[in-house]
Amino acid sequence: MADAGLDALLVTDRVNVRYLTGFTGSNAALLLLSGAASTEDPDTADPDTATLATDGRYTVQAAAEAPGLAVLVARVCGPALLAAGPSGPMIGRVGFDSAQVTVDAHEALAGAAPDADLVRAAGLVERLRAVKDAGEIDALRLACAAADAALAGALADGVLAPGRTERDVARELESRMRDHGAEGPSFETIVASGANAAIPHHRPTDAPLAAGDFLTMDFGALVDGYRSDLTRTVLLGPAADWQCEIYDVVDAAAAAGRAALRPGVAARDVDAAARDVVAAAGYAEAFVHGLGHGVGLVIHEAPAVATTATATLEEGMTVTVEPGIYLPGRGGVRIEDTLVVRDDGAEPLTTSQRDLLVLDGHGRRLT
Amino acid sequence: MADAGLDALLVTDRVNVRYLTGFTGSNAALLLLSGAASTEDPDTADPDTATLATDGRYTVQAAAEAPGLAVLVARVCGPALLAAGPSGPMIGRVGFDSAQVTVDAHEALAGAAPDADLVRAAGLVERLRAVKDAGEIDALRLACAAADAALAGALADGVLAPGRTERDVARELESRMRDHGAEGPSFETIVASGANAAIPHHRPTDAPLAAGDFLTMDFGALVDGYRSDLTRTVLLGPAADWQCEIYDVVDAAAAAGRAALRPGVAARDVDAAARDVVAAAGYAEAFVHGLGHGVGLVIHEAPAVATTATATLEEGMTVTVEPGIYLPGRGGVRIEDTLVVRDDGAEPLTTSQRDLLVLDGHGRRLT
Repeated sequence: MADAGLDALLVTDRVNVRYLTGFTGSNAALLLLSGAASTEDPDTADPDTATLATDGRYTVQAAAEAPGLAVLVARVCGPALLAAGPSGPMIGRVGFDSAQVTVDAHEALAGAAPDADLVRAAGLVERLRAVKDAGEIDALRLACAAADAALAGALADGVLAPGRTERDVARELESRMRDHGAEGPSFETIVASGANAAIPHHRPTDAPLAAGDFLTMDFGALVDGYRSDLTRTVLLGPAADWQCEIYDVVDAAAAAGRAALRPGVAARDVDAAARDVVAAAGYAEAFVHGLGHGVGLVIHEAPAVATTATATLEEGMTVTVEPGIYLPGRGGVRIEDTLVVRDDGAEPLTTSQRDLLVLDGHGRRLT
Repeated sequence: MADAGLDALLVTDRVNVRYLTGFTGSNAALLLLSGAASTEDPDTADPDTATLATDGRYTVQAAAEAPGLAVLVARVCGPALLAAGPSGPMIGRVGFDSAQVTVDAHEALAGAAPDADLVRAAGLVERLRAVKDAGEIDALRLACAAADAALAGALADGVLAPGRTERDVARELESRMRDHGAEGPSFETIVASGANAAIPHHRPTDAPLAAGDFLTMDFGALVDGYRSDLTRTVLLGPAADWQCEIYDVVDAAAAAGRAALRPGVAARDVDAAARDVVAAAGYAEAFVHGLGHGVGLVIHEAPAVATTATATLEEGMTVTVEPGIYLPGRGGVRIEDTLVVRDDGAEPLTTSQRDLLVLDGHGRRLT
């Protein structure tokens, strides 16, 4: 806030409010005052004061989750906070999240504090969130372990077999993640078999799995608010040459991406390290998305790891590396891990086997 | 669009894009041109032309879900559509969704089409969505039936018993909804027992259910994109007088709300019909939220049914009626149904028993 010259910051994104206060309700805003703005006498001021706003559904929850924080009860939280201020409508430079506040909401904010100077201040909290502390990494580790265990269990029990459907597989993975401590899936589970595996974000259908198909599973677990992200593609045998070829390319690209993850490296260079492997094999056009993304309280958060990314990696950032090759009408491969950037390289939090798994007609491992 | 004097409408909310096109990808925008804007010769123009934009992950899916629609492949869809236009950057009056477009995104739109007049046009598609057609009501009916069946099954199997946890109950309800055709829960399942039942949006914990507790379950099913919303509060016996009293008040308020649902009635009058019952019993302060909300592709959509609501009900709208009384530290009661507004009154799509259920130590019905 000091760097941005702000007298106050209005936090309106609910994940950011949760990150800063612990409050998890669905309707909230947080007003942070710098010391100078919070009192007429800066020498005696608390350096920062914070007021949480939420509506009547959440007053009990707010007291439990954010004890000691002043709470303003209002239905439209942002304008209410600006209108109340420390002692009347806010004045001075008030930062707001221009990447989250809508045009209509901005108008309401301006109306609530007509003498304030509303200043665009997007991404301030997201930048803090990108670097995880040990407690956050512990939660991510548990979320990753639940996803790994679910996949291992499904493999051991022969779930990934011809005749089962994409939906069956999704449900098995989600149920097994809960058995391993997940509160639920961390995002909409993707299970894509056969030609559907050429659709990066395919939703599971009642399509039965068939021999000779690729089967891509992209899923994760939610633990204590933190989200894991894991993709594996297996092959329901027999394996065709083209399938082995694209799998090997994606596997090598993923390895190159992981090897490039290090503090001080530009995120776009990590993308390039993996993309170059895919391009050298002649599949540049078939890798239709960025290499990865930050992951934490939100499944896609800062930093992006893509050709257009602008971030530089730091120790403690958690990101995915997930190259893919998609051949419309035929199938596709994606291999994805969640990793922590460490001083000496990348520590994978997901640890499922990456070598190509070829399964037989009963879902047992052939290789 | 004609009523708003628009030459074009940019649709950026993904649910609105899905509603209009069938495309379900997570990154999309839709540009609708009026006839006059789509060609230099209005007499020979198609009355409306539409272009869908999405990114490379979704091109196969877009062709499958929205066949025949022109597709522009772009990462940032809205600005790309305005920059491409029918034949170069858009000009004229272009409506945008000011309740969904952020301040930063608006700047990008303005930069992509500097000669266009960007006009606030929030809620145009939402207004269409509020009134459901027969196919949509069929999907909602299935979603409601899955929730009803899950609750009936959990009751029949003695799941709602002391010693089980809130999380157990949530998982049982979700699993049983899937057994009855749901793709998943329609929102984060709420299971709140004992004092937690005083928290309207409590998240299930590992708290064990105990004799003498209220148990509130607020949950729903997702079927073909449509979402149901059902709340029942049961009592793990024995019943105390205060519990029977507040249950009866909420039950009567819900009945009053349902009875008031009719085309031509102001939504706030429906809220008042139920709220008056609660207030007359002396619990006005304990009913801390609006009476209900529209429900469809999104769990909370137009029309709101609350003290501040502005909508007038129409035949075919689907809304919830869900009064509640919350006594901090003690517990609470909420009873909620999903209903269709019909010419002759309200048709409930959720049909679970509303009379107070008192359960014994094995989760069996005492009453």
